[in-house]
Amino acid sequence: MRNAPELLSSHRCFGGTVGFYRHHSETCDGSMRFSVFTPPQAAAGPVPVLYFLAGLTCTEENFMVKAGAQRAAAQHGLMLIAPDTSPRNTGIPGEDDEWDFGSGAGFYVDATEEPWSRHYRMYSYVVGELPLIVAAHFPADPERTGISGHSMGGHGALVCAFKNPTRYRSVSAFAPIAAPTRSPWGQKAFPRYLGVDQESWKSYDASALVALGTIEPTMLIDQGMADPYLEEQLRIDTFEQACAAAGQSLLLRRQVGYDHSYYFIASFIDDHLRHHAEVLIR
Amino acid sequence: MRNAPELLSSHRCFGGTVGFYRHHSETCDGSMRFSVFTPPQAAAGPVPVLYFLAGLTCTEENFMVKAGAQRAAAQHGLMLIAPDTSPRNTGIPGEDDEWDFGSGAGFYVDATEEPWSRHYRMYSYVVGELPLIVAAHFPADPERTGISGHSMGGHGALVCAFKNPTRYRSVSAFAPIAAPTRSPWGQKAFPRYLGVDQESWKSYDASALVALGTIEPTMLIDQGMADPYLEEQLRIDTFEQACAAAGQSLLLRRQVGYDHSYYFIASFIDDHLRHHAEVLIR
Repeated sequence: MRNAPELLSSHRCFGGTVGFYRHHSETCDGSMRFSVFTPPQAAAGPVPVLYFLAGLTCTEENFMVKAGAQRAAAQHGLMLIAPDTSPRNTGIPGEDDEWDFGSGAGFYVDATEEPWSRHYRMYSYVVGELPLIVAAHFPADPERTGISGHSMGGHGALVCAFKNPTRYRSVSAFAPIAAPTRSPWGQKAFPRYLGVDQESWKSYDASALVALGTIEPTMLIDQGMADPYLEEQLRIDTFEQACAAAGQSLLLRRQVGYDHSYYFIASFIDDHLRHHAEVLIR
Repeated sequence: MRNAPELLSSHRCFGGTVGFYRHHSETCDGSMRFSVFTPPQAAAGPVPVLYFLAGLTCTEENFMVKAGAQRAAAQHGLMLIAPDTSPRNTGIPGEDDEWDFGSGAGFYVDATEEPWSRHYRMYSYVVGELPLIVAAHFPADPERTGISGHSMGGHGALVCAFKNPTRYRSVSAFAPIAAPTRSPWGQKAFPRYLGVDQESWKSYDASALVALGTIEPTMLIDQGMADPYLEEQLRIDTFEQACAAAGQSLLLRRQVGYDHSYYFIASFIDDHLRHHAEVLIR
């Protein structure tokens, strides 16, 4: 049994509880943080779990503070888990110097390159270690797990889902970086985390992964059409075409006038929670 | 016609728009900021307006980002206006040195003491200048105005309502500083803004004002029972007794387990918006 994560603060919310936690991560070889919304239904037994992966510069706080997800999660009886977006304070020189690389920008990959490879293992953290901690210490039913995310975290959610086709029974994303090997953000981060061989990048690119094998649940993706990152960085059209070519079921909604902010996420989070609840709530 | 406020940023949200504005305030003799949620119904004509006054350390952003109010406001057709909590960058020495006095802590009073009296006139700004700007530049119906707030802003909302008994047709508050002349926060701020004569303080103390005259709408107040400021700073019991003695209609809900955070506000904001909509929406 792993050590219990340390509770840093706790807030009653919609009849449930928002908690912020810190723990020692073996995977990341250091301290990691995450937040949990435990719905009121958890008092009666294990509840399904939705992981939400946040975007560049975010911490474990942004989604819990800004998305307004707890209201619907409390209605459906969904636990929400929001991990931090990278290791922090690892001592790697320059770790905090760039907003789109290093701390706050783990890209949900397992870095293979020095000096990042010791700590920056967010993929294994999110799909491996964190679910075990959640299963051990929270009233969660690991058989009923969904995943979602925003921007870099939308990329992370899609990648986690494609690489673990039976693990995540429901999948959604907001404005994901949907083809990171063709995005300036990905082209900056991937060589430094993964090396210059672009073959290794493809295993963290949803538009490449879908061609290797589809997953069962229909994915729900919302994309704001006033999102300033849409064309250059996010490339949802590329992903849509890759899904069509592969036969992947996708519900892509282009939301006119919406940007890349949490005001966009909040506007449609209820639809996403319903999408997950329809699969996860028996 | 006053100069139009400058739009700093705009975000589509629940079919309406969140906008952040800056303008020159004559009342505060300097630049002031506020945020506006314009609901979709405003496209068809003027809509009622709910002012929300935020608490210590907050800006015009906190309520719009954290409260999750836009969903219900879009359903009801309510415009939301959230002003900053003080003037900023006035050049007054020490203005930013204390979290509970000066910038971020205007206490919704008109300061009479130097050096604060020239700029720190938040009471007149909120009840006088800002409503004129809103009426002139936004699709708002000034005849249908409600007011709410949190903590210091709950104090502000109650004070504005009692001092303008016909202006605000609906009133609510979250964890207001309900008897500031008996609260350490008030006892620190009031002498410096208003002078040592405690008589002048009473015109900004809801528990004193209610004794001078009740107002018609039933006030809705939510107070978390795990709020660390409840006994010493907020003193809702004092206000409840003053309302009972004066015959003021009050719906006070003591919410077990809830603290002073926006997780508390978000949990009950829908009830507050319904409370205001029932009066303001014809």
